[in-house]
Amino acid sequence: MAERGQSIAETVKAIAEGHLTSRQWVEHCLGRIRDNETNGSWSYVDEERALKCADELDWMRNDGSAFGSLHGCPVGVKDIIEVEGMPHGCGSTLMGEVSEVNAALVDALEAAGAVILGKTETTEFAFLNPARTKNPLSFEHTPGGSSAGSAAAVASGDVPVAIGTQTNGSVIRPASYCGVYAMKPSAGIIPRTGVFEQSPTLDQIGLFATSLEDLGLVIDVLSVHDSRDPHSIAVPRPSCFAGVKAEPPMEPNFAIFKLPYSDLQSDACTEGFREVADSLEGRVEILETPPTFGQLIEAQRTIHLTEAYHAFDAMGFIGNSQLSEVMTQMLTEARSVPRSQYEEALIIRDSLTEFFNNFFEDFDAILSPSSSGEAPPLSEGNTGNPIFCTVWTLAGLPSLNLPILQGENGLPIGLQMIGRRRDDARLLRTARWFMTALFDEGEA
Amino acid sequence: MAERGQSIAETVKAIAEGHLTSRQWVEHCLGRIRDNETNGSWSYVDEERALKCADELDWMRNDGSAFGSLHGCPVGVKDIIEVEGMPHGCGSTLMGEVSEVNAALVDALEAAGAVILGKTETTEFAFLNPARTKNPLSFEHTPGGSSAGSAAAVASGDVPVAIGTQTNGSVIRPASYCGVYAMKPSAGIIPRTGVFEQSPTLDQIGLFATSLEDLGLVIDVLSVHDSRDPHSIAVPRPSCFAGVKAEPPMEPNFAIFKLPYSDLQSDACTEGFREVADSLEGRVEILETPPTFGQLIEAQRTIHLTEAYHAFDAMGFIGNSQLSEVMTQMLTEARSVPRSQYEEALIIRDSLTEFFNNFFEDFDAILSPSSSGEAPPLSEGNTGNPIFCTVWTLAGLPSLNLPILQGENGLPIGLQMIGRRRDDARLLRTARWFMTALFDEGEA
Repeated sequence: MAERGQSIAETVKAIAEGHLTSRQWVEHCLGRIRDNETNGSWSYVDEERALKCADELDWMRNDGSAFGSLHGCPVGVKDIIEVEGMPHGCGSTLMGEVSEVNAALVDALEAAGAVILGKTETTEFAFLNPARTKNPLSFEHTPGGSSAGSAAAVASGDVPVAIGTQTNGSVIRPASYCGVYAMKPSAGIIPRTGVFEQSPTLDQIGLFATSLEDLGLVIDVLSVHDSRDPHSIAVPRPSCFAGVKAEPPMEPNFAIFKLPYSDLQSDACTEGFREVADSLEGRVEILETPPTFGQLIEAQRTIHLTEAYHAFDAMGFIGNSQLSEVMTQMLTEARSVPRSQYEEALIIRDSLTEFFNNFFEDFDAILSPSSSGEAPPLSEGNTGNPIFCTVWTLAGLPSLNLPILQGENGLPIGLQMIGRRRDDARLLRTARWFMTALFDEGEA
Repeated sequence: MAERGQSIAETVKAIAEGHLTSRQWVEHCLGRIRDNETNGSWSYVDEERALKCADELDWMRNDGSAFGSLHGCPVGVKDIIEVEGMPHGCGSTLMGEVSEVNAALVDALEAAGAVILGKTETTEFAFLNPARTKNPLSFEHTPGGSSAGSAAAVASGDVPVAIGTQTNGSVIRPASYCGVYAMKPSAGIIPRTGVFEQSPTLDQIGLFATSLEDLGLVIDVLSVHDSRDPHSIAVPRPSCFAGVKAEPPMEPNFAIFKLPYSDLQSDACTEGFREVADSLEGRVEILETPPTFGQLIEAQRTIHLTEAYHAFDAMGFIGNSQLSEVMTQMLTEARSVPRSQYEEALIIRDSLTEFFNNFFEDFDAILSPSSSGEAPPLSEGNTGNPIFCTVWTLAGLPSLNLPILQGENGLPIGLQMIGRRRDDARLLRTARWFMTALFDEGEA
């Protein structure tokens, strides 16, 4: 039941066929959460609520009136995403009020039959100050951030899927460090309503799972429209589950950019990445970065800081002593960013978007490391460098973490695969082809 | 293209296969709307917006990145349901501000690829004062109310589907008068967020189409969860499209209640209904109504009046001279309803819900006329009597209008089929079986 190697779709099918109950699946995961408590992956778990929900789903299954694509599937939700009846912690003592309404994406999960077990730990307001979460693969190392608990909960088998958010590298980086699959779909595909707003321009939703197929299945559920979110697109979403299962019409082509920050990569990261590139032989092209790339990291930071300052100002939190030192420093720096610099940064971002609008006519996906290397030790006091995610997030492109590289200490490093905006199904199709080609893994 | 007899699913398939474009479908419907302008079905149409949306859908189809189950399908939305960028008229000069956000159900339609052409006429705040809409089958007769424009727009072929609402009989009755298929799904299946609130206890969403299959397809799209609506259920919805296509495991059983208000039926209604019952031979049972049925009409009226008064009071509209006379009278009456009577009415409603919880173990569906007869003449100054819908709406049961009976003037009368709450797929399955058995209509 819910074994490693069994997909969510297969487990849901087992429930449909009566070989397993929702309650058994939920009880199994609640047991895992209790066993793994020292991981510090969860900020809140409501066992009673979860079991009651599972029982109702079992009743519906037996009654035959309705059955969802995630029927009975336990899910963890990052603690900056509102869940009705659960405290909205946001990794800060300033928050913690019980939510009265679900985030839009949580409504979508529930309508598909998912069982929300609780909230997963986040760094303070999804910024830099580390969560209490440990990397399940090595308690001396960071799980990354900001979606630390979601990555760790999936890595330790607490839940088959957990939801996170990414403003810079908060999904792909922790997935890289914890060795799980993850995807941040295109901006606009999953609505952000009910999610703590750090940066309206940059905030995006992502998720962690143990296979590409599971990612596709859950993204299809999350991909609803909500006109309260100005980024939410009012048209159909890509069919991601079908995408994972589809054969590419021809063998895909990949691009690798010579990134201006590749000197940050660890040796193992560089070597592993080169091996992957070599194995793709004629299917990969190494490209010089366009000149604008040099400005992008700074432009992202300008947008991020400026909008975050607005968010904290609106909440009345500027100068609050309950904020961490690193947060206070960041807000102080944000205050000195001139408006003109912010407006220029938005123009730079627009030119980046335009660049990528045409780029994917020649390539199916871009390859990059997901992080500079394996998870840094906790003793360094940070959650690692998000820079290998920055550009793709800034452009709103869909990106995947594939847990296939390894670092000097035997900890995982992810390979990042980036696709065309709003073509998420093709990215998953390409990734599946890639995993099969590299590892002959039909069931990646 | 979009011909009578071709289902929405077939037309969408034609778009997928490149035999038709979204733009052609939308242009066709916009042309119908112009041709049928004297019907008075629409309060607002935005041609430019619709064509722009159609073009984007065509671009997506050609691009191959995403395709929805309603890709390109033109839809009309009752003018008490908010559509971003369109005036929220509610059939009253007191309203008309442009909506900033979609109702939740409109978000769901757009994410499936539907094209919202505009808003359909409603009676004043979805109450009794008639809309300007005429019955497309006879301009001297009412189309019914309150979802007058939605029923008329589908009956005259302006759009293949239109959304309405029903607090008492505002979907099933106009469908009966206009001779179209309609369904009001179970309470809680389709969220009401962004819909003018008349009565939080009684308000429900419904829709009009030209076949059972189309109803099922669109209900599956509308059936999203929204925790802002306290009635919205946080679990999977029935699969209505699959329901229409499914074979019943055994031949269904029907119940007919001897309704205390059956003397209101016209002779043609009574006779046509008896013929249907006779044709079902051993599959139908005539039942005495339980004693509580006598109180139900009054209980519904008490709840409806009390909650409507609260709604108008909250908007500051009590005593406003722009309200119609019939509305002002209703609010005056509402003011004299004692609180104790309201609370008793809610208890009566609870006992009704309980009664029906067990009822459908023995029966697949209840049969009833949809209205007392064919559409009354406009000269009578009202929209007809909703009493044949009251009990089922009060209980939140799913109900269908099947346009199969005929009145004295050759105008249609609907047969109403009512199912178990939250078992909407079974109701559609039963109705499909019924239509096939009666008319050998495989494609009902």
